[in-house]
Amino acid sequence: MNDMEKVLNNIRIKSPLVHNITNYVVMNSTANALLAIGASPVMAHAKEETEDIVTISSSLVINMGTLSEKWVDSMLLAVKKAKETNTPFVFDPVGVGASQYRTQMALKIIETATPNVIRGNASEIMVLAQQATSSKGVDSTMQAEDAVSGAIELSKKLNNTVVVSGAVDYIITGDKVSTISNGSILMPKVTGMGCTATSIIGACIAIESDVHLACTAAMAIMGIAGDMAAELSKGPGSFQANFLDSLYLLSGDIIEHRIKLNA
Amino acid sequence: MNDMEKVLNNIRIKSPLVHNITNYVVMNSTANALLAIGASPVMAHAKEETEDIVTISSSLVINMGTLSEKWVDSMLLAVKKAKETNTPFVFDPVGVGASQYRTQMALKIIETATPNVIRGNASEIMVLAQQATSSKGVDSTMQAEDAVSGAIELSKKLNNTVVVSGAVDYIITGDKVSTISNGSILMPKVTGMGCTATSIIGACIAIESDVHLACTAAMAIMGIAGDMAAELSKGPGSFQANFLDSLYLLSGDIIEHRIKLNA
Amino acid sequence: MNDMEKVLNNIRIKSPLVHNITNYVVMNSTANALLAIGASPVMAHAKEETEDIVTISSSLVINMGTLSEKWVDSMLLAVKKAKETNTPFVFDPVGVGASQYRTQMALKIIETATPNVIRGNASEIMVLAQQATSSKGVDSTMQAEDAVSGAIELSKKLNNTVVVSGAVDYIITGDKVSTISNGSILMPKVTGMGCTATSIIGACIAIESDVHLACTAAMAIMGIAGDMAAELSKGPGSFQANFLDSLYLLSGDIIEHRIKLNA
Repeated sequence: MNDMEKVLNNIRIKSPLVHNITNYVVMNSTANALLAIGASPVMAHAKEETEDIVTISSSLVINMGTLSEKWVDSMLLAVKKAKETNTPFVFDPVGVGASQYRTQMALKIIETATPNVIRGNASEIMVLAQQATSSKGVDSTMQAEDAVSGAIELSKKLNNTVVVSGAVDYIITGDKVSTISNGSILMPKVTGMGCTATSIIGACIAIESDVHLACTAAMAIMGIAGDMAAELSKGPGSFQANFLDSLYLLSGDIIEHRIKLNA
Repeated sequence: MNDMEKVLNNIRIKSPLVHNITNYVVMNSTANALLAIGASPVMAHAKEETEDIVTISSSLVINMGTLSEKWVDSMLLAVKKAKETNTPFVFDPVGVGASQYRTQMALKIIETATPNVIRGNASEIMVLAQQATSSKGVDSTMQAEDAVSGAIELSKKLNNTVVVSGAVDYIITGDKVSTISNGSILMPKVTGMGCTATSIIGACIAIESDVHLACTAAMAIMGIAGDMAAELSKGPGSFQANFLDSLYLLSGDIIEHRIKLNA
Repeated sequence: MNDMEKVLNNIRIKSPLVHNITNYVVMNSTANALLAIGASPVMAHAKEETEDIVTISSSLVINMGTLSEKWVDSMLLAVKKAKETNTPFVFDPVGVGASQYRTQMALKIIETATPNVIRGNASEIMVLAQQATSSKGVDSTMQAEDAVSGAIELSKKLNNTVVVSGAVDYIITGDKVSTISNGSILMPKVTGMGCTATSIIGACIAIESDVHLACTAAMAIMGIAGDMAAELSKGPGSFQANFLDSLYLLSGDIIEHRIKLNA
């Protein structure tokens, strides 16, 4: 059994509880993706319970897609608790750079507790690497490869793993760079596919302590399910259903035959 | 025309307005399920309007999946108004036991106004029956049958109907126990199918004053639509589309031929 | 190239950023519809960033489906900023008339800044035209044609464009009335199709300064994609996927051959 297969199997065997504090747009999609791959999602954001939920969870996903004051308060409570309880957490800085508030809150979250993983598109990662200061909305205006050097710096500074997703996905842990080249052009036509990648990373780091491997497996799972779905789809609507089916039907064998990995 | 067919037909003829104060994850799914079966959903949670909306609605659905302070305030206003206006209401204690806050709020809602129906999975019902005190996230860690005796006690204590859903669904009104054994293993792989069951109960109690019958019809509708959808689906993605289509295409004849009822 | 084709092509070429402050139920659906047609959606509601986001966006969509106090505050900030920055905005008064609060807030938004476009169903438009004072939930209780004279008055009073959607869609700018008769009976069986129409209007006014033409094109896009999807669908579940696929596959040629326009 290869490493990727091991990660997938462990998600299905252990069905880890993945705590998501995420945005309104994608909650349904990311919960469904986590269920399809075999994890157990919980969406909870109330300040009164966020620490309790972190405590019983195997990983934490923080996604600031539709952030506001009270949600940021809960995110801060959650990430502190994650550090106390050694719960791995992944941060998705959706749209960072699109407003001053968004940039400030992203930096505040990272300063409060270093995420084990940050996943974003090239624009978002560049803003965090302070090599760029504005982005257009929530979609990237550059290619993933343009953000690689910034991502390496960011990863070294934070001593964590940074994932830059795009046509090619870069998984970066200091100087270690792996790439996954799976995935379909239909994926940017579906809202929240990036957020879904972040949640799948959440499932993988919940059961795999080698964070670089966990993130590589997550991006392989996303990309291969995307390839499988695109082959069956006429557009972004049928793609969504086929993508969840593909996550559900994914096997170690399929990963082995389809993966486009450069480790 | 049998009883179940009557309930279904009345939903379609009367298209009852069903007021949902529910969680962010499932709002879209439950609204679509209510539309597909023939009801008219309204989602409204602002404290300024919740009582007005209860007043014009035929039933009320309270679901605490992503509860927070202001939402609980609105839920309390709504359930009080439901009692004043004799509007039947169903309560879904999502994830009760997963945090102290969640347990306290569930009990507060029930104490403020007894729900005509409580629907949950086995773990949730057991927490409410005070036979268990913790649960793992929002998914059940036990089988529905394990919660039956607790559910009977709870139903007698509250003088209402308790529905425990699982591979077999139990509809319990005091010592009266009916079961529905329809449904697919794909259903727990889709987020919010339990919440959808609760909303379909909302549609049934809106037009059928025999609450036990209404709940039995609702669980039959859910389970049979689940059976029909699973036969056409490769995984949880295609299942979702097929499930809504099946709700839409469901007829009294189909119910009669497919129902696995033990009354 | 006809006018409608020009609007569609410009959305795809310019991929305008469309800022949505909308309701929880439809956020995912409207974001996906905007992506499928070629626009770039951003969903952001925090008062701290709403003005920044308006400033970088090409149009603004205000939808009050699940309004509450803080969201209304942000909507008011956003519409004021839209006027300052000459950003066209469309307002969807979901469920106006269903509660006093909802009616008051709708009027407050319109008084704060006149929307370039108001789109609603017949009941909603009649409430705004002050010819009716209550509605049943969020679904219309009358036909679009019943609201035409009220809509003409409203349009003249506000000096803007009013769209009344239904089996026939009316696009009204003062005395100029165009109709689109495309669309399927499955559309009212899917939640948020009206909200989606409003967001598509948002995409069209972002790139077309002739607001009447932009709204006519938007309703043609909605109706024709609805026709195409219905031909492939068994019910409202498969319709949703087919609708997004149809938006994605729509071309100027298809519009030309299928459009049922009375200009």
